[in-house]
Amino acid sequence: MRTEEKGRLTSRLLVILSKGTMDMVYPALMIATTGATMGKEVHMFFTFWGMNAVNKKTVNSMKVASVGNPGLPMPNILGMIPGMTAMATKMMNGRMKKAKIQSIPEMFRMAKDLGVKLHACSTTMDVMGVPKESLIDEVDDVVGAATMLQLGEGGQIIFI
Amino acid sequence: MRTEEKGRLTSRLLVILSKGTMDMVYPALMIATTGATMGKEVHMFFTFWGMNAVNKKTVNSMKVASVGNPGLPMPNILGMIPGMTAMATKMMNGRMKKAKIQSIPEMFRMAKDLGVKLHACSTTMDVMGVPKESLIDEVDDVVGAATMLQLGEGGQIIFI
Amino acid sequence: MRTEEKGRLTSRLLVILSKGTMDMVYPALMIATTGATMGKEVHMFFTFWGMNAVNKKTVNSMKVASVGNPGLPMPNILGMIPGMTAMATKMMNGRMKKAKIQSIPEMFRMAKDLGVKLHACSTTMDVMGVPKESLIDEVDDVVGAATMLQLGEGGQIIFI
Repeated sequence: MRTEEKGRLTSRLLVILSKGTMDMVYPALMIATTGATMGKEVHMFFTFWGMNAVNKKTVNSMKVASVGNPGLPMPNILGMIPGMTAMATKMMNGRMKKAKIQSIPEMFRMAKDLGVKLHACSTTMDVMGVPKESLIDEVDDVVGAATMLQLGEGGQIIFI
Repeated sequence: MRTEEKGRLTSRLLVILSKGTMDMVYPALMIATTGATMGKEVHMFFTFWGMNAVNKKTVNSMKVASVGNPGLPMPNILGMIPGMTAMATKMMNGRMKKAKIQSIPEMFRMAKDLGVKLHACSTTMDVMGVPKESLIDEVDDVVGAATMLQLGEGGQIIFI
Repeated sequence: MRTEEKGRLTSRLLVILSKGTMDMVYPALMIATTGATMGKEVHMFFTFWGMNAVNKKTVNSMKVASVGNPGLPMPNILGMIPGMTAMATKMMNGRMKKAKIQSIPEMFRMAKDLGVKLHACSTTMDVMGVPKESLIDEVDDVVGAATMLQLGEGGQIIFI
């Protein structure tokens, strides 16, 4: 349910993350932490490739796609050369550090400190064969699509 | 307009699908059918690559991208080898079946049974040259962006 | 804050563009201009790869990805051949013209005429090293995530 306090009309924010690349995990975490700082009740739901962001095995090594991404100043044929995804990723990591942006694991800890709730998608865990033990400690619970929609009820939903 | 019954504040859900890959069609259909089960008025709008999902020629053979997808445990150079998109797709289809998830055509039929309304984007059909006869029977109508926004008025919008 | 006039409940629309490809810039601009025509207060926020859309250097040459896009009727191996991204882009530009869709720069001018406000993401500009002088004239200001969420307060948010 929506609470209307201090003139604020939308107090709930649900961020659904379906992508498993660094360049999409960052906006998800930035929006979630900013919303929490503003006093919103923020939920994050990790589904499909987004599960990579809350998997202990992958959270420390999120990547940027080097092919199929015309946003990168690099021809596709170059993106094919082994190591180019690693190079694009390293470049972005360097730029993030230079701009004093926290790492993804650090942002997850900040999100938790700010009261953001993290939910992993039960269906994705079934389909991908991800055991509960693989999830990072910051994850609050494993829920289905119905619970996820209830968490966003009356609020704004951002699907990334 | 929004109806407020039984304490529910958001009774409308508009899911816009702009992607043409299996891994994005599934979340769209899962969210839409779950919302309908919860009693929401659900609309789906198919635009740009999302048109593939409601095209008779492609609905039965939706694919997963094998390159430019660092979410897949596969280097880009491998994704290039002819047949790898087919293999990634086969793998996901197999996992979906094992987890007892319905096929995409089955989910469309379920969506219709639950009262979800399906709308195809008129501009995309013009641009892509898709005739009305190519659309699957579950599509209710062909509408423009203004009608689409009206269908989501007062509700939540999820852009996939 | 939300205004409720003439029976309209959702008068605000915030379109966040995080992708830098032509096929995602178009839906963003079409939704924004349509919303403005319907009388909504529309804001666009350009972040991550979406910054390409408001950068003078790239706005006139937005591209369509030719690999990692199973929505295109083209095998990945073909997408790799130098020039294929250019060819896919040319094809889409041709189709857009044939369907009498305005060019991206023309749509930005129309958006401004309709009162749409354009905001560039300050963090992205820091990270990517984009100077303010590179932004197209239509951009109103450079803001952070908190201002962006305030612009969407009480309204609908579409993340592309």
